[in-house]
Amino acid sequence: MSRSAEALAGIAPETKAAILAEAIPYVRRFSNKVVVVKYGGNALDGDSDERGGLRSFAEDIVLMRSVGMLPVVVHGGGPQIGELMARLGKTPEFRDGLRVTDADTLDIARMVLVGKVNREIVDALNVHGPVGLGLSGEDAGLITATLRDPALGFVGDVAAVDSSILTRLVGEGLVPVIATIGADGAGQAYNINADTVAGAIAVSLACEKLIFLTDVAGIRRDRDDPTSLVSELGAGELEKMIADGSIAEGMIPKAEACALAVRAGVGSAHILDGRVPHALLLELLTEEGIGTMVVGQ
Amino acid sequence: MSRSAEALAGIAPETKAAILAEAIPYVRRFSNKVVVVKYGGNALDGDSDERGGLRSFAEDIVLMRSVGMLPVVVHGGGPQIGELMARLGKTPEFRDGLRVTDADTLDIARMVLVGKVNREIVDALNVHGPVGLGLSGEDAGLITATLRDPALGFVGDVAAVDSSILTRLVGEGLVPVIATIGADGAGQAYNINADTVAGAIAVSLACEKLIFLTDVAGIRRDRDDPTSLVSELGAGELEKMIADGSIAEGMIPKAEACALAVRAGVGSAHILDGRVPHALLLELLTEEGIGTMVVGQ
Amino acid sequence: MSRSAEALAGIAPETKAAILAEAIPYVRRFSNKVVVVKYGGNALDGDSDERGGLRSFAEDIVLMRSVGMLPVVVHGGGPQIGELMARLGKTPEFRDGLRVTDADTLDIARMVLVGKVNREIVDALNVHGPVGLGLSGEDAGLITATLRDPALGFVGDVAAVDSSILTRLVGEGLVPVIATIGADGAGQAYNINADTVAGAIAVSLACEKLIFLTDVAGIRRDRDDPTSLVSELGAGELEKMIADGSIAEGMIPKAEACALAVRAGVGSAHILDGRVPHALLLELLTEEGIGTMVVGQ
Amino acid sequence: MSRSAEALAGIAPETKAAILAEAIPYVRRFSNKVVVVKYGGNALDGDSDERGGLRSFAEDIVLMRSVGMLPVVVHGGGPQIGELMARLGKTPEFRDGLRVTDADTLDIARMVLVGKVNREIVDALNVHGPVGLGLSGEDAGLITATLRDPALGFVGDVAAVDSSILTRLVGEGLVPVIATIGADGAGQAYNINADTVAGAIAVSLACEKLIFLTDVAGIRRDRDDPTSLVSELGAGELEKMIADGSIAEGMIPKAEACALAVRAGVGSAHILDGRVPHALLLELLTEEGIGTMVVGQ
Amino acid sequence: MSRSAEALAGIAPETKAAILAEAIPYVRRFSNKVVVVKYGGNALDGDSDERGGLRSFAEDIVLMRSVGMLPVVVHGGGPQIGELMARLGKTPEFRDGLRVTDADTLDIARMVLVGKVNREIVDALNVHGPVGLGLSGEDAGLITATLRDPALGFVGDVAAVDSSILTRLVGEGLVPVIATIGADGAGQAYNINADTVAGAIAVSLACEKLIFLTDVAGIRRDRDDPTSLVSELGAGELEKMIADGSIAEGMIPKAEACALAVRAGVGSAHILDGRVPHALLLELLTEEGIGTMVVGQ
Amino acid sequence: MSRSAEALAGIAPETKAAILAEAIPYVRRFSNKVVVVKYGGNALDGDSDERGGLRSFAEDIVLMRSVGMLPVVVHGGGPQIGELMARLGKTPEFRDGLRVTDADTLDIARMVLVGKVNREIVDALNVHGPVGLGLSGEDAGLITATLRDPALGFVGDVAAVDSSILTRLVGEGLVPVIATIGADGAGQAYNINADTVAGAIAVSLACEKLIFLTDVAGIRRDRDDPTSLVSELGAGELEKMIADGSIAEGMIPKAEACALAVRAGVGSAHILDGRVPHALLLELLTEEGIGTMVVGQ
Repeated sequence: MSRSAEALAGIAPETKAAILAEAIPYVRRFSNKVVVVKYGGNALDGDSDERGGLRSFAEDIVLMRSVGMLPVVVHGGGPQIGELMARLGKTPEFRDGLRVTDADTLDIARMVLVGKVNREIVDALNVHGPVGLGLSGEDAGLITATLRDPALGFVGDVAAVDSSILTRLVGEGLVPVIATIGADGAGQAYNINADTVAGAIAVSLACEKLIFLTDVAGIRRDRDDPTSLVSELGAGELEKMIADGSIAEGMIPKAEACALAVRAGVGSAHILDGRVPHALLLELLTEEGIGTMVVGQ
Repeated sequence: MSRSAEALAGIAPETKAAILAEAIPYVRRFSNKVVVVKYGGNALDGDSDERGGLRSFAEDIVLMRSVGMLPVVVHGGGPQIGELMARLGKTPEFRDGLRVTDADTLDIARMVLVGKVNREIVDALNVHGPVGLGLSGEDAGLITATLRDPALGFVGDVAAVDSSILTRLVGEGLVPVIATIGADGAGQAYNINADTVAGAIAVSLACEKLIFLTDVAGIRRDRDDPTSLVSELGAGELEKMIADGSIAEGMIPKAEACALAVRAGVGSAHILDGRVPHALLLELLTEEGIGTMVVGQ
Repeated sequence: MSRSAEALAGIAPETKAAILAEAIPYVRRFSNKVVVVKYGGNALDGDSDERGGLRSFAEDIVLMRSVGMLPVVVHGGGPQIGELMARLGKTPEFRDGLRVTDADTLDIARMVLVGKVNREIVDALNVHGPVGLGLSGEDAGLITATLRDPALGFVGDVAAVDSSILTRLVGEGLVPVIATIGADGAGQAYNINADTVAGAIAVSLACEKLIFLTDVAGIRRDRDDPTSLVSELGAGELEKMIADGSIAEGMIPKAEACALAVRAGVGSAHILDGRVPHALLLELLTEEGIGTMVVGQ
Repeated sequence: MSRSAEALAGIAPETKAAILAEAIPYVRRFSNKVVVVKYGGNALDGDSDERGGLRSFAEDIVLMRSVGMLPVVVHGGGPQIGELMARLGKTPEFRDGLRVTDADTLDIARMVLVGKVNREIVDALNVHGPVGLGLSGEDAGLITATLRDPALGFVGDVAAVDSSILTRLVGEGLVPVIATIGADGAGQAYNINADTVAGAIAVSLACEKLIFLTDVAGIRRDRDDPTSLVSELGAGELEKMIADGSIAEGMIPKAEACALAVRAGVGSAHILDGRVPHALLLELLTEEGIGTMVVGQ
Repeated sequence: MSRSAEALAGIAPETKAAILAEAIPYVRRFSNKVVVVKYGGNALDGDSDERGGLRSFAEDIVLMRSVGMLPVVVHGGGPQIGELMARLGKTPEFRDGLRVTDADTLDIARMVLVGKVNREIVDALNVHGPVGLGLSGEDAGLITATLRDPALGFVGDVAAVDSSILTRLVGEGLVPVIATIGADGAGQAYNINADTVAGAIAVSLACEKLIFLTDVAGIRRDRDDPTSLVSELGAGELEKMIADGSIAEGMIPKAEACALAVRAGVGSAHILDGRVPHALLLELLTEEGIGTMVVGQ
Repeated sequence: MSRSAEALAGIAPETKAAILAEAIPYVRRFSNKVVVVKYGGNALDGDSDERGGLRSFAEDIVLMRSVGMLPVVVHGGGPQIGELMARLGKTPEFRDGLRVTDADTLDIARMVLVGKVNREIVDALNVHGPVGLGLSGEDAGLITATLRDPALGFVGDVAAVDSSILTRLVGEGLVPVIATIGADGAGQAYNINADTVAGAIAVSLACEKLIFLTDVAGIRRDRDDPTSLVSELGAGELEKMIADGSIAEGMIPKAEACALAVRAGVGSAHILDGRVPHALLLELLTEEGIGTMVVGQ
């Protein structure tokens, strides 16, 4: 008996009916709405169980699309970059938490992000039919980058997003999967923080929801107290929590991207635990949702 | 706590997720598909509880439409016709189970079906927004009728269905609600059996599903044994059951309409218990469905 | 020899040519223009001669449509409601000329208007092909009603008109025939004055002409002097005549509807004698027209 | 009092209504139908009265177009060519009734047809608005011509008609006016018989009607007996009359064009007296029509 | 060996590649852009060599169109008008350089322009396929004219240009060839200066380029010094040269049209020597161009 | 003075005009036609001069697109794969000329092809504007692969090509750049020979031309005699040359792809020397072309 069949066994018809009746208005509400989902590189690595994570994630994305939502996936790949550098005998160097990126490191990062992580996500989606299409920010002018700081090498900031290619692809029923490399006008490539790119793309698409799939349950009022999970807060409140240090390091770029996105018109931004099976469906199609939701006020 | 909230209380997230993941492929499969639903006159009458039946029915139809299905409602109204005849002091006369219909009786039947039952269904739908639109078979050439038998008066058979008006209306997001009066080329109206009309419309629309909402659980192998409910059977088998008398009177026109419809290309035909809350959703969006399904073989 | 053949006999070709040359610019001018026609319940009842009235009316509507005009019919049915009430032994009660409408009376009025009068007009049109489609104001959110006065029961005022369904139907070559029942947001139905509804629909459609077919020749300067027929007047002048009592009772709602309509942008409003054969054609396609025309100034 | 006002004075409303009711089905039937009208060069010349003929013709064409018909005008210009040749001191030479056309004569014919007669018709139409557009068969590949007989010089036969330019122009609401010059693949121009061209264009457009406006009342059974006018005949019968000499010279190419056209699918072909005021309207919009009609059988 | 083959012999591949790489951006830039070309009547007349001029001109126009440009040709015909007047024994009379135009002269001018010169250009184009379509300003309301000066007779000024017919024709892949006759609202025709009409049409189409093909190399700083050719100048500078008499007579209307056109938004205006083979291609597709270019400043 | 300016200096206008007049019909002929260009991995590597090769290639592709052709680029990357394997200390193993590809080698090949070579081509194109978009055969179901031979590991054959994504992308003005990785239904990736993929894509697109840019001048009759270059041959002749060993190793898959493509309906296939500057323009836009052309016969 599969895990799913097990979960369904013995559920009364009225319960099923009630859950469906609850879900349908959300299906309708998000029909033809773009949802940008940031999928972390952590989730891809390691043992077979986590591969199950990629399979379940791909399933949710395909289900979202099949009821008319327009998902766009943005991904990172830090651990995988580190792995190839190690194989090539290169020692990563960080400055203020950012990887110093010389030309060879950029080449490695791009090969890993565009040629490995991106591919694995696309292939997992396409088991369900030809729906996934991988992109780098360099393609069709999607992300124009600028040098952040000469001392960091080829680390970029987002200068502009031209999301017209995304609009057309989702309009054709495809799911764009985006590796966060950008290029400048001279054709020079840069590596860019994936959380930041996810936020910038969400804003450019004026999308309905921006969802970060992470490995924590959401934002905590007190970062050491697991019971202090916040289920909804405003952008202002979140900015205060960043300013006063309540938000932990890895969470900072995600939290900043959430605040910026909802201030720029994105409907809502979410931080969810991607390890919960079908986390996306629960967030999108039930009244209570899961994780932390950031809204405009 | 509402009945619905009650049903949802304490359901584990993984259960919800499993039900949603099960339902979504059906949502996709029936998107933009026409589903013809025959709603019986019985369900409309009487005490407030049954009014609850109309409310719940209207809710399901609106939910179906909101996820992209294209419902078409066909209704009868026998009890309501009888009631007005009684008030007017007319004695109904039946011959072989069919109401003998003189000009005055036809007028009465038409007033009740088009001007009362049809209205109540439309009004119940339109509480949820301007989606319902009532039609008689006389409108825009929908149903061309012919005289069945001079001895019966203005009782008609379906000579032709021109469903182009239905196709346009569902294409505009409306839910047609059809009273089963037809007219001939000279503008003479006829009363027609509602089960037969539902089948003829389903065939003309080459629809995905034809669903009869009744007050029984479905077709029984042995009509006296409630445990002998048949969950799926072929048209041929059903025709044999009609021929050998296994099917009871009131069920005969429904069973015949089911068999004819699936033989003429309708995806499947269903006989459900309309008293089960959200019967339509359970049939359409769960793997096991409810009631009896008739298929082509 | 038919009445029509008789009329044509012996007409010189140059006369025919002159009449045609005169009519063509009007055909062109009204092509693709909406014309709202209010048809009174009086015209439908009684002896066979008046049935001839319905036939001739239907013919004119079909001819209008066949040269590209977009007719919309609104009808009443007071006499027919009274008749069924009498059969049911109910005594009509009027207050200030308005029928007091309890729940049962509303049911009766709706059955008669939607299920009888509306049907007869639709059937008369559809003898010429599948062009007529009956609607109640409850359908597809066409007329939102509000309670006029608790003392009157379910008598409604027009709160809003959503004529999008009419625009689509006329765009598909259909002739909407409208019974003047409206509903509120809770699905409660109301009976509304048909002249008022005709005016509100004309305004909502920003139509070219609003035509009342009545049983008088038009508006008279002196209501007792048949020779004082006014062939054209402005809205202001008409409002003055209403105020000073020159307009008789039954004519008041029609006159008010005319004045309101032209002030709100309807091209012109007309009060014609529907008993003149082909009254609509003569009004629409000849230079002098017939009856009384109300214009904006 | 204008001739038209005079004609209308004292006509009873019921007469008017009957004429209009008779005409409307024809308006509908010919809506969006192409009607090719051949207008003879004779009608253009001479005294002011005949100029009135051009004015009245232009009026009819504009009226036809204003009720949705798609008129296409083809014209000749023999008398006008003769006139310019006379002024230039050239002696026309005929062989078997056909003008021998050397290079200079062709130049003259083309100047007169394209630069004079065509212009006068276009200018007469455009007094009513910018609807007329003059074409020669040389334009946009309309008429490909071949040499008929070296002895005749630049006299052409119709080798092919590409009516796509006409279809587009009438679709844009314009009235093409065609001078009957054609060209071959090398750019050499030819003069072609206008009746023949009218027939070939009618066939190429698969038009509803082909109408020759002449200065006779129609075809006579006995060409010397004015009372023997034929109001309708089949193509076969007409061909027999051509063969047995019943048809007079000038009428032969018209009669041949009529027979060929209806055999090739044109709805009907007509020979009318263009001197009757509004001859086109009487033919198109009254039951009895005028002149001679040729039909397929 | 043809002149063209001769020119190509021995050209190194890198030279060819360089010329092509230079030309392609211009092809792209002018794709779907309207270019109005004024072609003078002088070029059409006389010996066979100049006929070669018409052939080469037609070739260039067809090549322009084949790479997606939208050429519109405007032509004059003074010498040809003079010729026919001479044959008819009429003495031309000029006042201030303008031809006094009585009714007969207008008829002659129109026959020559519309029925002869226009035809020759159309026929030369159509040797390459059915692309040319001749128009007079009278067609479809293209040019509304007004009387310039009663003393001059039927000499017109441009009152209005309605270029919608041109837009549609070029959109259908056709090349309009325009004779410069206009008409007023009463259908009276006028002869108009062709340079002026070319400018007015260029402005009405808001075209990319207006090109005058003449028989001089361009505008000279010193009109007696062939080495003083100006390759580019602003409208202001040009107007100063007109004012101070630096511009010679025949050049004045062209220079005025150029200055007006670029001031009214035309991209640039050009005066080229039409005798240079493929003058249009060299101007349009090479970096240096030829002749004189007038720009907005 | 740039190389290009040098090439253009001193070219006579008539030479330029002749080259342009020669080129334009080709521009027209290839407008909106798909041209598949296979670009070899060799051309990308090594010293700055060859980088100039990528720049010049990108320029030609952008010029092709700017005149309306629809280029599609397919690339290999053998040398670059070898390089990364060497850095990672892996020893390539070949069997019958094919690389034995274990899971790690596949990962490396995919990273290099999709994440490095593909990126460099896209970035070189996008210096000219956002036109390039990189794809792997895994995207949107482009290339379905099957295992060739278990002994070779993840080396694939083309099982199916779904070029609908390419058709849409070129229709939106983009230039697809394709890395030749395919996937099977289970999401397993395979490395496929790039020449074979180029041919399969050309066939699937039913394209006009398939062009292989190589580092030889074309096919030689005698492979040791540089003067025996074949400028045109039929598919049959080419197949014979493959069979009799006249075609050298590296050329075999290209020659086979050419023969298969033209037999399957591709207009023509070409083998050019990609080191000639603007080789694509010379092939496409001059009468003589360069290299070897393979045609259907």
